[in-house]
Amino acid sequence: MKLYDLPASPNARRVRIFIAEKDLQIPMVPIDMISGENRKSEYLAKNSLGRMPLLELDDGTCIAESIAICRYLESEFPSPPLFGSSGLEQAIIEMWQRRMEFLLLNPMINIFRHTHEMWKDRITQIPQIAEIESEDVKEKMIWLDAELKGKQYIAGGDYSVADITAQCAFVMGKAAVGIRIPQELSNLDAWWSRVTTRKSARA
Amino acid sequence: MKLYDLPASPNARRVRIFIAEKDLQIPMVPIDMISGENRKSEYLAKNSLGRMPLLELDDGTCIAESIAICRYLESEFPSPPLFGSSGLEQAIIEMWQRRMEFLLLNPMINIFRHTHEMWKDRITQIPQIAEIESEDVKEKMIWLDAELKGKQYIAGGDYSVADITAQCAFVMGKAAVGIRIPQELSNLDAWWSRVTTRKSARA
Repeated sequence: MKLYDLPASPNARRVRIFIAEKDLQIPMVPIDMISGENRKSEYLAKNSLGRMPLLELDDGTCIAESIAICRYLESEFPSPPLFGSSGLEQAIIEMWQRRMEFLLLNPMINIFRHTHEMWKDRITQIPQIAEIESEDVKEKMIWLDAELKGKQYIAGGDYSVADITAQCAFVMGKAAVGIRIPQELSNLDAWWSRVTTRKSARA
Repeated sequence: MKLYDLPASPNARRVRIFIAEKDLQIPMVPIDMISGENRKSEYLAKNSLGRMPLLELDDGTCIAESIAICRYLESEFPSPPLFGSSGLEQAIIEMWQRRMEFLLLNPMINIFRHTHEMWKDRITQIPQIAEIESEDVKEKMIWLDAELKGKQYIAGGDYSVADITAQCAFVMGKAAVGIRIPQELSNLDAWWSRVTTRKSARA
Protein backbone atom coordinates (compact mmCIF):
# COMPACT_ATOMS: atom_id res chain seq x y z
CA MET A 1 0.00 0.00 0.00
CA LYS A 2 0.96 3.67 -0.31
CA LEU A 3 -0.27 6.95 1.07
CA TYR A 4 -0.92 9.98 -1.11
CA ASP A 5 0.12 12.75 1.21
CA LEU A 6 -0.27 16.52 1.47
CA PRO A 7 2.59 17.37 3.84
CA ALA A 8 1.11 20.65 5.17
CA SER A 9 -2.41 19.29 5.74
CA PRO A 10 -3.51 18.64 9.34
CA ASN A 11 -5.68 15.77 8.11
CA ALA A 12 -2.71 14.13 6.43
CA ARG A 13 -0.68 14.72 9.59
CA ARG A 14 -3.27 12.76 11.57
CA VAL A 15 -2.60 9.73 9.39
CA ARG A 16 1.18 10.17 9.53
CA ILE A 17 1.15 10.32 13.34
CA PHE A 18 -1.13 7.26 13.42
CA ILE A 19 1.30 5.38 11.16
CA ALA A 20 4.24 6.43 13.36
CA GLU A 21 2.42 5.27 16.53
CA LYS A 22 1.90 1.86 14.89
CA ASP A 23 5.56 1.90 13.81
CA LEU A 24 4.63 1.09 10.20
CA GLN A 25 6.65 1.83 7.08
CA ILE A 26 4.24 2.96 4.37
CA PRO A 27 5.59 4.71 1.26
CA MET A 28 4.31 8.28 0.96
CA VAL A 29 3.62 10.00 -2.35
CA PRO A 30 3.34 13.79 -1.92
CA ILE A 31 0.67 15.40 -4.11
CA ASP A 32 1.22 19.00 -5.16
CA MET A 33 -2.09 20.80 -4.60
CA ILE A 34 -0.66 24.19 -5.52
CA SER A 35 0.11 23.07 -9.09
CA GLY A 36 -3.26 21.28 -9.26
CA GLU A 37 -1.92 17.71 -9.35
CA ASN A 38 -4.96 16.60 -7.33
CA ARG A 39 -7.37 17.91 -9.99
CA LYS A 40 -5.80 15.87 -12.81
CA SER A 41 -7.72 12.86 -14.12
CA GLU A 42 -5.10 10.38 -12.88
CA TYR A 43 -5.66 11.44 -9.27
CA LEU A 44 -9.42 12.04 -9.62
CA ALA A 45 -9.76 8.40 -10.74
CA LYS A 46 -8.47 7.44 -7.29
CA ASN A 47 -10.49 10.04 -5.35
CA SER A 48 -13.23 11.88 -7.24
CA LEU A 49 -13.11 14.66 -4.64
CA GLY A 50 -9.43 15.32 -5.34
CA ARG A 51 -8.52 15.33 -1.67
CA MET A 52 -5.62 14.04 0.37
CA PRO A 53 -4.69 11.92 2.27
CA LEU A 54 -5.61 8.79 0.34
CA LEU A 55 -4.51 5.21 1.01
CA GLU A 56 -4.11 2.99 -2.04
CA LEU A 57 -4.00 -0.75 -1.39
CA ASP A 58 -1.96 -3.14 -3.51
CA ASP A 59 -5.07 -4.23 -5.46
CA GLY A 60 -5.83 -0.59 -6.36
CA THR A 61 -8.63 -0.08 -3.80
CA CYS A 62 -8.52 3.50 -2.55
CA ILE A 63 -9.61 4.72 0.88
CA ALA A 64 -10.13 8.45 1.39
CA GLU A 65 -10.81 10.37 4.62
CA SER A 66 -8.11 10.42 7.28
CA ILE A 67 -10.10 8.62 9.96
CA ALA A 68 -11.29 5.93 7.53
CA ILE A 69 -7.65 5.31 6.59
CA CYS A 70 -6.69 5.08 10.27
CA ARG A 71 -9.51 2.62 10.91
CA TYR A 72 -8.32 0.40 8.08
CA LEU A 73 -4.78 0.46 9.48
CA GLU A 74 -6.15 -0.34 12.96
CA SER A 75 -7.90 -3.43 11.57
CA GLU A 76 -4.75 -4.61 9.77
CA PHE A 77 -2.31 -3.68 12.56
CA PRO A 78 -4.29 -3.79 15.81
CA SER A 79 -1.38 -3.12 18.18
CA PRO A 80 -1.25 -0.72 19.94
CA PRO A 81 -5.00 -0.03 19.77
CA LEU A 82 -5.64 3.65 19.04
CA PHE A 83 -9.43 3.35 18.64
CA GLY A 84 -9.95 1.44 21.91
CA SER A 85 -10.54 -2.22 22.71
CA SER A 86 -13.98 -2.93 24.25
CA GLY A 87 -17.15 -1.66 22.58
CA LEU A 88 -17.63 0.96 25.30
CA GLU A 89 -14.02 2.13 25.05
CA GLN A 90 -14.38 2.43 21.29
CA ALA A 91 -17.53 4.51 21.68
CA ILE A 92 -15.92 6.86 24.21
CA ILE A 93 -12.87 7.33 21.97
CA GLU A 94 -15.16 7.95 18.99
CA MET A 95 -17.05 10.56 21.03
CA TRP A 96 -13.82 12.36 21.91
CA GLN A 97 -12.35 12.03 18.44
CA ARG A 98 -15.44 13.71 17.02
CA ARG A 99 -15.48 16.42 19.67
CA MET A 100 -11.84 17.25 18.94
CA GLU A 101 -12.54 17.27 15.21
CA PHE A 102 -15.65 19.44 15.32
CA LEU A 103 -14.75 21.77 18.18
CA LEU A 104 -11.05 22.29 17.47
CA LEU A 105 -9.60 20.89 14.25
CA ASN A 106 -12.31 21.94 11.79
CA PRO A 107 -12.58 25.45 13.26
CA MET A 108 -8.77 25.87 13.05
CA ILE A 109 -8.87 24.79 9.38
CA ASN A 110 -11.79 27.15 8.78
CA ILE A 111 -9.94 30.09 10.33
CA PHE A 112 -6.98 29.37 8.06
CA ARG A 113 -9.10 29.07 4.92
CA HIS A 114 -10.97 32.29 5.60
CA THR A 115 -7.88 34.39 6.34
CA HIS A 116 -4.86 33.00 4.50
CA GLU A 117 -3.55 34.31 1.22
CA MET A 118 -3.29 30.76 -0.13
CA TRP A 119 -7.08 30.39 -0.14
CA LYS A 120 -7.86 33.84 -1.51
CA ASP A 121 -8.63 32.71 -5.05
CA ARG A 122 -9.96 29.28 -4.07
CA ILE A 123 -12.95 30.14 -1.88
CA THR A 124 -15.05 33.18 -0.96
CA GLN A 125 -13.26 34.28 2.17
CA ILE A 126 -15.45 35.66 4.98
CA PRO A 127 -13.15 37.10 7.66
CA GLN A 128 -16.08 37.28 10.12
CA ILE A 129 -16.20 33.47 10.15
CA ALA A 130 -12.57 33.43 11.29
CA GLU A 131 -13.32 35.93 14.07
CA ILE A 132 -16.29 33.93 15.37
CA GLU A 133 -14.45 30.61 15.16
CA SER A 134 -11.41 32.07 16.97
CA GLU A 135 -13.54 33.19 19.90
CA ASP A 136 -15.22 29.82 19.96
CA VAL A 137 -11.95 27.88 19.90
CA LYS A 138 -10.73 29.94 22.87
CA GLU A 139 -13.87 29.00 24.84
CA LYS A 140 -13.45 25.36 23.88
CA MET A 141 -9.84 25.37 25.15
CA ILE A 142 -11.15 26.44 28.57
CA TRP A 143 -13.78 23.70 28.42
CA LEU A 144 -11.21 21.08 27.40
CA ASP A 145 -8.83 22.16 30.17
CA ALA A 146 -11.59 21.44 32.71
CA GLU A 147 -12.40 18.11 31.04
CA LEU A 148 -8.74 17.07 31.22
CA LYS A 149 -8.56 17.42 35.00
CA GLY A 150 -7.14 14.18 36.39
CA LYS A 151 -6.72 12.66 32.94
CA GLN A 152 -3.50 11.89 31.07
CA TYR A 153 -5.09 11.72 27.64
CA ILE A 154 -8.20 13.15 25.98
CA ALA A 155 -10.43 10.06 26.09
CA GLY A 156 -9.47 9.27 29.67
CA GLY A 157 -7.49 6.07 29.10
CA ASP A 158 -4.41 5.58 26.95
CA TYR A 159 -3.18 7.79 24.12
CA SER A 160 -5.69 7.46 21.27
CA VAL A 161 -6.80 8.83 17.93
CA ALA A 162 -8.66 11.55 19.88
CA ASP A 163 -5.30 12.89 21.07
CA ILE A 164 -3.96 12.77 17.52
CA THR A 165 -6.87 14.89 16.26
CA ALA A 166 -6.50 17.40 19.09
CA GLN A 167 -2.74 17.73 18.71
CA CYS A 168 -3.08 18.30 14.92
CA ALA A 169 -5.63 21.02 15.71
CA PHE A 170 -3.18 22.80 17.99
CA VAL A 171 -0.26 22.37 15.56
CA MET A 172 -2.46 24.14 12.99
CA GLY A 173 -3.41 26.76 15.55
CA LYS A 174 0.19 27.50 16.48
CA ALA A 175 1.74 27.31 13.02
CA ALA A 176 -0.95 28.84 10.84
CA VAL A 177 -3.50 30.92 12.71
CA GLY A 178 -1.74 32.25 15.82
CA ILE A 179 -3.82 30.44 18.43
CA ARG A 180 -1.73 28.98 21.25
CA ILE A 181 -2.66 27.12 24.41
CA PRO A 182 -2.54 29.67 27.27
CA GLN A 183 -0.14 28.55 30.03
CA GLU A 184 -2.78 29.14 32.70
CA LEU A 185 -4.80 26.26 31.21
CA SER A 186 -2.51 23.95 33.11
CA ASN A 187 -4.23 20.62 32.38
CA LEU A 188 -4.29 21.35 28.66
CA ASP A 189 -0.73 22.66 28.74
CA ALA A 190 0.50 19.52 30.53
CA TRP A 191 -1.36 17.33 28.01
CA TRP A 192 0.29 19.28 25.16
CA SER A 193 3.77 18.59 26.60
CA ARG A 194 2.83 14.95 27.03
CA VAL A 195 1.74 14.40 23.42
CA THR A 196 4.30 16.61 21.68
CA THR A 197 7.23 14.84 23.32
CA ARG A 198 6.15 11.53 21.80
CA LYS A 199 8.38 10.45 18.93
CA SER A 200 5.34 10.30 16.60
CA ALA A 201 4.64 14.03 17.01
CA ARG A 202 7.29 14.83 14.42
CA ALA A 203 5.65 12.66 11.73
CA MET B 1 -30.20 2.43 28.84
CA LYS B 2 -32.07 5.50 27.62
CA LEU B 3 -31.66 8.08 24.90
CA TYR B 4 -31.94 11.80 25.54
CA ASP B 5 -33.52 12.96 22.33
CA LEU B 6 -34.07 16.22 20.46
CA PRO B 7 -36.91 15.22 18.13
CA ALA B 8 -36.24 17.87 15.44
CA SER B 9 -32.47 17.35 15.29
CA PRO B 10 -31.04 15.54 12.27
CA ASN B 11 -28.28 14.13 14.46
CA ALA B 12 -30.82 12.66 16.86
CA ARG B 13 -32.75 11.30 13.86
CA ARG B 14 -29.63 9.41 12.77
CA VAL B 15 -29.62 7.54 16.07
CA ARG B 16 -33.39 6.90 15.97
CA ILE B 17 -33.17 5.41 12.46
CA PHE B 18 -30.19 3.32 13.57
CA ILE B 19 -32.18 2.01 16.55
CA ALA B 20 -35.15 1.23 14.28
CA GLU B 21 -32.93 -0.65 11.82
CA LYS B 22 -31.64 -2.78 14.71
CA ASP B 23 -35.24 -3.23 15.90
CA LEU B 24 -34.35 -2.15 19.45
CA GLN B 25 -36.67 -0.70 22.05
CA ILE B 26 -34.79 2.05 23.89
CA PRO B 27 -36.73 4.55 26.02
CA MET B 28 -36.42 8.10 24.70
CA VAL B 29 -36.39 11.19 26.92
CA PRO B 30 -37.07 14.36 24.91
CA ILE B 31 -35.02 17.38 26.04
CA ASP B 32 -36.52 20.81 25.48
CA MET B 33 -33.76 22.97 24.01
CA ILE B 34 -36.05 25.96 23.48
CA SER B 35 -36.71 26.30 27.23
CA GLY B 36 -33.02 25.67 27.95
CA GLU B 37 -33.42 22.27 29.64
CA ASN B 38 -30.08 21.23 28.10
CA ARG B 39 -28.25 24.12 29.81
CA LYS B 40 -29.40 23.14 33.31
CA SER B 41 -26.86 21.57 35.66
CA GLU B 42 -28.66 18.22 35.74
CA TYR B 43 -28.19 17.75 32.01
CA LEU B 44 -24.75 19.39 31.86
CA ALA B 45 -23.55 16.80 34.38
CA LYS B 46 -24.35 14.17 31.74
CA ASN B 47 -22.95 16.12 28.78
CA SER B 48 -20.88 19.21 29.55
CA LEU B 49 -21.56 20.49 26.03
CA GLY B 50 -25.33 20.42 26.59
CA ARG B 51 -25.98 18.62 23.32
CA MET B 52 -28.34 15.90 22.21
CA PRO B 53 -28.59 13.00 21.44
CA LEU B 54 -27.01 11.34 24.46
CA LEU B 55 -27.12 7.69 25.45
CA GLU B 56 -27.12 6.94 29.17
CA LEU B 57 -26.22 3.39 30.19
CA ASP B 58 -27.69 1.69 33.23
CA ASP B 59 -24.53 2.38 35.26
CA GLY B 60 -24.77 6.11 34.48
CA THR B 61 -22.08 6.20 31.79
CA CYS B 62 -23.03 8.75 29.14
CA ILE B 63 -22.09 8.60 25.48
CA ALA B 64 -22.52 11.76 23.39
CA GLU B 65 -22.14 12.22 19.63
CA SER B 66 -24.61 10.45 17.36
CA ILE B 67 -22.07 8.26 15.59
CA ALA B 68 -20.38 7.26 18.85
CA ILE B 69 -23.79 6.19 20.18
CA CYS B 70 -24.44 4.17 17.01
CA ARG B 71 -21.05 2.49 17.32
CA TYR B 72 -21.79 1.47 20.89
CA LEU B 73 -25.15 0.02 19.81
CA GLU B 74 -23.43 -1.81 16.94
CA SER B 75 -21.02 -3.45 19.40
CA GLU B 76 -23.86 -4.51 21.71
CA PHE B 77 -26.30 -5.51 18.93
CA PRO B 78 -24.17 -6.49 15.93
CA SER B 79 -27.00 -7.66 13.68
CA PRO B 80 -27.65 -6.36 11.06
CA PRO B 81 -24.21 -4.74 10.71
CA LEU B 82 -24.58 -1.06 9.76
CA PHE B 83 -20.87 -0.17 10.02
CA GLY B 84 -19.69 -3.10 7.85
CA SER B 85 -18.13 -6.45 8.67
CA SER B 86 -14.55 -6.86 7.38
CA GLY B 87 -11.90 -4.24 8.15
CA LEU B 88 -11.96 -2.99 4.55
CA GLU B 89 -15.76 -2.79 4.49
CA GLN B 90 -15.72 -0.84 7.74
CA ALA B 91 -13.17 1.60 6.32
CA ILE B 92 -15.18 2.15 3.12
CA ILE B 93 -18.38 2.74 5.12
CA GLU B 94 -16.49 5.13 7.42
CA MET B 95 -15.22 7.01 4.35
CA TRP B 96 -18.76 7.38 2.97
CA GLN B 97 -20.27 8.19 6.34
CA ARG B 98 -17.82 11.04 6.73
CA ARG B 99 -18.31 12.27 3.17
CA MET B 100 -22.09 12.36 3.70
CA GLU B 101 -21.64 14.16 7.00
CA PHE B 102 -19.16 16.79 5.81
CA LEU B 103 -20.47 17.36 2.28
CA LEU B 104 -24.22 17.17 2.93
CA LEU B 105 -25.43 16.95 6.52
CA ASN B 106 -23.24 19.60 8.13
CA PRO B 107 -23.80 22.10 5.28
CA MET B 108 -27.60 21.58 5.53
CA ILE B 109 -27.44 22.22 9.29
CA ASN B 110 -25.25 25.28 8.65
CA ILE B 111 -27.71 26.71 6.11
CA PHE B 112 -30.51 26.26 8.63
CA ARG B 113 -28.59 27.89 11.47
CA HIS B 114 -27.55 30.88 9.39
CA THR B 115 -31.03 31.60 8.00
CA HIS B 116 -33.68 30.39 10.43
CA GLU B 117 -35.50 32.59 12.94
CA MET B 118 -34.90 30.01 15.65
CA TRP B 119 -31.15 30.66 15.62
CA LYS B 120 -31.36 34.46 15.34
CA ASP B 121 -30.53 35.16 18.98
CA ARG B 122 -28.33 32.11 19.47
CA ILE B 123 -25.52 32.70 16.95
CA THR B 124 -24.22 35.49 14.71
CA GLN B 125 -26.05 34.65 11.51
CA ILE B 126 -24.13 35.23 8.27
CA PRO B 127 -26.56 34.75 5.35
CA GLN B 128 -23.64 34.61 2.90
CA ILE B 129 -22.55 31.33 4.47
CA ALA B 130 -25.96 29.87 3.67
CA GLU B 131 -25.73 31.04 0.04
CA ILE B 132 -22.28 29.53 -0.44
CA GLU B 133 -23.22 26.25 1.27
CA SER B 134 -26.42 25.97 -0.80
CA GLU B 135 -24.47 26.24 -4.06
CA ASP B 136 -21.98 23.73 -2.77
CA VAL B 137 -24.64 21.22 -1.71
CA LYS B 138 -26.17 21.43 -5.19
CA GLU B 139 -22.79 20.59 -6.76
CA LYS B 140 -22.32 17.74 -4.31
CA MET B 141 -25.72 16.27 -5.25
CA ILE B 142 -24.53 16.08 -8.87
CA TRP B 143 -21.30 14.45 -7.72
CA LEU B 144 -23.18 11.94 -5.54
CA ASP B 145 -25.57 11.09 -8.36
CA ALA B 146 -22.59 10.09 -10.51
CA GLU B 147 -21.05 8.12 -7.64
CA LEU B 148 -24.32 6.20 -7.13
CA LYS B 149 -24.34 4.84 -10.68
CA GLY B 150 -24.82 1.08 -10.48
CA LYS B 151 -25.02 1.13 -6.69
CA GLN B 152 -28.03 0.44 -4.48
CA TYR B 153 -26.67 2.15 -1.41
CA ILE B 154 -24.13 4.88 -0.69
CA ALA B 155 -21.18 2.73 0.39
CA GLY B 156 -21.68 0.27 -2.46
CA GLY B 157 -22.81 -2.76 -0.46
CA ASP B 158 -25.78 -3.06 1.87
CA TYR B 159 -27.71 -0.26 3.55
CA SER B 160 -25.37 1.30 6.13
CA VAL B 161 -24.84 4.20 8.49
CA ALA B 162 -23.63 6.22 5.46
CA ASP B 163 -27.16 6.00 4.01
CA ILE B 164 -28.61 7.08 7.36
CA THR B 165 -26.43 10.19 7.42
CA ALA B 166 -27.27 11.06 3.80
CA GLN B 167 -31.00 10.56 4.24
CA CYS B 168 -31.03 12.75 7.38
CA ALA B 169 -29.22 15.43 5.37
CA PHE B 170 -31.92 15.36 2.69
CA VAL B 171 -34.76 15.29 5.24
CA MET B 172 -33.24 18.47 6.68
CA GLY B 173 -32.85 19.91 3.19
CA LYS B 174 -36.45 19.24 2.26
CA ALA B 175 -38.10 20.14 5.56
CA ALA B 176 -36.02 23.08 6.72
CA VAL B 177 -33.98 24.76 3.99
CA GLY B 178 -35.86 24.14 0.73
CA ILE B 179 -33.23 21.99 -0.98
CA ARG B 180 -34.70 18.98 -2.79
CA ILE B 181 -33.15 16.27 -4.91
CA PRO B 182 -33.75 17.23 -8.57
CA GLN B 183 -35.61 14.46 -10.44
CA GLU B 184 -33.05 14.52 -13.25
CA LEU B 185 -30.46 13.17 -10.81
CA SER B 186 -31.97 9.76 -11.39
CA ASN B 187 -29.50 7.63 -9.42
CA LEU B 188 -29.84 9.86 -6.38
CA ASP B 189 -33.60 10.05 -6.80
CA ALA B 190 -33.89 6.24 -7.01
CA TRP B 191 -31.68 5.89 -3.91
CA TRP B 192 -33.94 8.38 -2.08
CA SER B 193 -37.04 6.26 -2.88
CA ARG B 194 -35.16 3.17 -1.77
CA VAL B 195 -34.19 4.53 1.66
CA THR B 196 -37.33 6.51 2.45
CA THR B 197 -39.61 3.51 1.89
CA ARG B 198 -37.80 1.58 4.61
CA LYS B 199 -39.83 1.30 7.78
CA SER B 200 -37.01 2.92 9.77
CA ALA B 201 -37.28 6.16 7.78
CA ARG B 202 -40.20 7.30 9.94
CA ALA B 203 -38.19 7.00 13.18
